[in-house]
Amino acid sequence: MLKTLANLKVIFLGTSSAIPTSERGLSSIALVREGEILLFDAGEGTQRSFFKANLGFNKKMKIFISHLHGDHCVGLLGLLQTMSMLERTLPLSVYGPRGLLGFVKNNMKSLKCELSFPLNIKIVAEGTFLEENEYVVRACKGKHFITNYAYALEEKDRPGVFEPNNAIRLGIPKIKWSNLQKDETVTVKGKKIKPEQVIGPKRRGRKIVISGDTRPTLKLKHFLEGSDVAILDSTYFDEHKEKAKEHMHMTASEAMELSSKAGVKKVVLTHFSSRYRDVATILASISKKHINTIAATDFMEINIPYPDELTEKKKE
Amino acid sequence: MLKTLANLKVIFLGTSSAIPTSERGLSSIALVREGEILLFDAGEGTQRSFFKANLGFNKKMKIFISHLHGDHCVGLLGLLQTMSMLERTLPLSVYGPRGLLGFVKNNMKSLKCELSFPLNIKIVAEGTFLEENEYVVRACKGKHFITNYAYALEEKDRPGVFEPNNAIRLGIPKIKWSNLQKDETVTVKGKKIKPEQVIGPKRRGRKIVISGDTRPTLKLKHFLEGSDVAILDSTYFDEHKEKAKEHMHMTASEAMELSSKAGVKKVVLTHFSSRYRDVATILASISKKHINTIAATDFMEINIPYPDELTEKKKE
Repeated sequence: MLKTLANLKVIFLGTSSAIPTSERGLSSIALVREGEILLFDAGEGTQRSFFKANLGFNKKMKIFISHLHGDHCVGLLGLLQTMSMLERTLPLSVYGPRGLLGFVKNNMKSLKCELSFPLNIKIVAEGTFLEENEYVVRACKGKHFITNYAYALEEKDRPGVFEPNNAIRLGIPKIKWSNLQKDETVTVKGKKIKPEQVIGPKRRGRKIVISGDTRPTLKLKHFLEGSDVAILDSTYFDEHKEKAKEHMHMTASEAMELSSKAGVKKVVLTHFSSRYRDVATILASISKKHINTIAATDFMEINIPYPDELTEKKKE
Repeated sequence: MLKTLANLKVIFLGTSSAIPTSERGLSSIALVREGEILLFDAGEGTQRSFFKANLGFNKKMKIFISHLHGDHCVGLLGLLQTMSMLERTLPLSVYGPRGLLGFVKNNMKSLKCELSFPLNIKIVAEGTFLEENEYVVRACKGKHFITNYAYALEEKDRPGVFEPNNAIRLGIPKIKWSNLQKDETVTVKGKKIKPEQVIGPKRRGRKIVISGDTRPTLKLKHFLEGSDVAILDSTYFDEHKEKAKEHMHMTASEAMELSSKAGVKKVVLTHFSSRYRDVATILASISKKHINTIAATDFMEINIPYPDELTEKKKE
């Protein structure tokens, strides 16, 4: 089946760790892929950020909770309530670690919140826990006080590029081109022609990893390999590296080092401690070796092109 | 005992009903009285508003929850967590309807939130449920889907004004004035002089009522009587008066009518439905009869003078 290109962008809805500031809300990151919202964490204030970012409450959507600390999941309650008030009808799945079901159920009961749509709470295990037509989502345990999952969105390969010149050279009539594009073998003048004779190699989809709260680990490095974009816990900078150990987070340097070892193409640091008032300046002073690293800000949007789109652009 | 004047102001931290907007956060109102914060409701986002309003997380403080709908209490969770992260030491009491204890306890457990300070959850009953040296707090049940309390902060009377001219006329030596000011009888040349001979009548303290979510009721009217300031549910305007009945709220007109009957001196309407984009203009078109009515906005601050301060000012 011929696949069209899928738009994919990330919108940062909250980029502060633990305590919000006037500029940074609590953790929440939206990947918007072809109109579907994949929301990673929902800290307090997420529903308000949804309005500000014009995300819509009745869209095709899935939510992934990294871990059950309040600053990563309390916003789920208001989000579910507001979706219901706005009469959401589409089903919603929320994925996360053990304890998520109790957290949501107890609160829906305490707060007398009646949902207008089917809600499925799904407890995550490591590995590929979700497979859709065009992508999978995988989980990897981090190293934090409680179970934390890093998540990876991995798109499946797209078919290779159809080469009309090859088809013409092989004398294939145009009426049969679409069969080849659908990965079917065709017969031309009694001769079998396979799709790979006119279609280039499969093209890799995109991979985006979001770390949640974690120390750097070898396991996470492996999980990061092949990422086009990694959005990483960078609660601290070097001056507080002892605190990073104590509170089970990464420093910006640790996150960059890990991504560099894993060959990540673009790194976006987030989850900054509220003590840092000018993250961009601090980062600029240390990231010279890591030119593909930026610091997230609330409502920053980043389009994520396909790897081969980048290659094409470089060729131009 | 001679009492000094106590500063009292109200700061609106969130003035939207049910669903936040980009301009209005969810319900939360801080009364700041002589450095003590009395917080009425804590909708999602309250902790962030605390920072913006420079309120401080380790102040003498009490919290009063009107009812257990998410938009009035979910912010409590982040507030408690942030207080602990900032190492609050002062004890905190949270008052509210039955169910509050379970809501807080279950969430502290689910979210692995360890408090750095003593937390007392106190279930409210109608009437005077809290008495401090200088004020009491009373509760009155409203008419809503679930138990909702309107709260009244009522300051105790202050002593009357000491009249030096009277004291001089009665030949009382200055050394004995402070005894009279402390409400003690003194003896001058064998003659007993009572405080009331040199001190005017006791002066009424201030009364502020905050309604929570409710329909207008006769009981609430009685509860409002004698209020200097009433902060009232005004979810709807006249065009949606049927919705006000259906969703158990007041319209602005109903709130003003009720306050007018109760002789409330100043009315501040709040908890506006997110459907209204320009509340002030709508209100201006209907409130001509109610000149002492204003619409709250987020971060609006109002100083509340003593009734006799107002009288003094009028005299001038």
